[in-house]
Amino acid sequence: MEKIDIGKFIAHLSIDCVIFGYKDKELKVLISKFKFGKGTWMLPGGHVLKTEGIDKAASRVLKDRTGLENIYLEQFRVFGDENRIVNSEHKAIMKADLIAYDERFDEEVTEWITSRFISVGYYALVDIHKVNPKNGFFDEYLEWRSINDIPQMNYDHNEILTYGLEALRQNLDRKLIGFNLLPETFTIKEIQELYEAVYDRPFARNNFQKKILDLNVLERLEKKFTGAQNKAPYLYRFIRN
Amino acid sequence: MEKIDIGKFIAHLSIDCVIFGYKDKELKVLISKFKFGKGTWMLPGGHVLKTEGIDKAASRVLKDRTGLENIYLEQFRVFGDENRIVNSEHKAIMKADLIAYDERFDEEVTEWITSRFISVGYYALVDIHKVNPKNGFFDEYLEWRSINDIPQMNYDHNEILTYGLEALRQNLDRKLIGFNLLPETFTIKEIQELYEAVYDRPFARNNFQKKILDLNVLERLEKKFTGAQNKAPYLYRFIRN
Repeated sequence: MEKIDIGKFIAHLSIDCVIFGYKDKELKVLISKFKFGKGTWMLPGGHVLKTEGIDKAASRVLKDRTGLENIYLEQFRVFGDENRIVNSEHKAIMKADLIAYDERFDEEVTEWITSRFISVGYYALVDIHKVNPKNGFFDEYLEWRSINDIPQMNYDHNEILTYGLEALRQNLDRKLIGFNLLPETFTIKEIQELYEAVYDRPFARNNFQKKILDLNVLERLEKKFTGAQNKAPYLYRFIRN
Repeated sequence: MEKIDIGKFIAHLSIDCVIFGYKDKELKVLISKFKFGKGTWMLPGGHVLKTEGIDKAASRVLKDRTGLENIYLEQFRVFGDENRIVNSEHKAIMKADLIAYDERFDEEVTEWITSRFISVGYYALVDIHKVNPKNGFFDEYLEWRSINDIPQMNYDHNEILTYGLEALRQNLDRKLIGFNLLPETFTIKEIQELYEAVYDRPFARNNFQKKILDLNVLERLEKKFTGAQNKAPYLYRFIRN
């Protein structure tokens, strides 16, 4: 079998993605059950081609895992501690697993994969109903997990997720990006429930409704079909400027 | 002469610093008049040792240029476009200048220096009165320039500065970091003037005073000596938690 061409990537630089979705009133994150390293959990990630911008690399990783293009994504932090990965307890396990799996993973390749990496963290917001998770080479499977039910992950991936959530919380309102987590049309109550899931606290209904409508970014559509026409709430759509 | 040891640094990874100071009611940035590349302007920056965390590298660059340790600094964005530096019009000029200057800058070294770089942007906040700018190898001299009087800089350094200023504006109030730009003691009016310089807009005096005092992060000291004791304003000191 042909040896893996690590030379096409920038050494020591990686991308890690916190892919947020929203369903059943819960904020969720798409995480990977790894085939290697004793089947631990990881954030989906990848490397950067020498000819590729870092945003492009993140888009590629996201498209590979979700099937979606034009995903909302934003870098939020670089993780560049000198000990991350290379001095992790997990390095030796990962190397041994890879070498045992396939002869293309020789000493050089596995050393490269588990060397020091500076990783750029991106968070992405997707309409969860449009995603068909697709395994990458390293994934045993991908799973949507509630933000309140995240397992221990490899390396510093739990820390990366925490920073990603903090960035989402800082930007959700300021940049009006929450609509990327919702289907095309929604009720005001559904936006409120999304905000409550992201910030993990209740919002007062009247204040919230007024605040959202005052932003002038929603177009009111027909009433939602509920059977009880009088009490049915209106549906809205986000107006992209 | 001994060849320059580029091998001790991580290839393709750099640090660029937006060093903010404050003086004469103006926000200022310390920029470098470069010895090479036809004497254009640059942000102070450097590379990352293979054994060094990225925050440590930024601290080292800052200490080299300002003489200060324990500077407040924060990463704000990664600049990773595939064309930055390597496809810049400035690359050939920079290479030629370096090769002509010193035989240690041979083809290999100059190619390394002007290859594709992913740069981590840091902004730093200093008490300008404590800084003695000190030239790095590439600096003809360093200069404090008002944010309203920034020259055209090399590569994407003006863009990096713009993002750094945006990050400072987002964080000044939220993280209460403005005090790093002031001397140990200051009047409320002086804080207000700092805020006005950073946000480039006036603040209403009464509202501002109330807001700042309500934060409960200031300790009131004696009155400032002005000669007119009755009208003299109080001095304050920031209480670090």
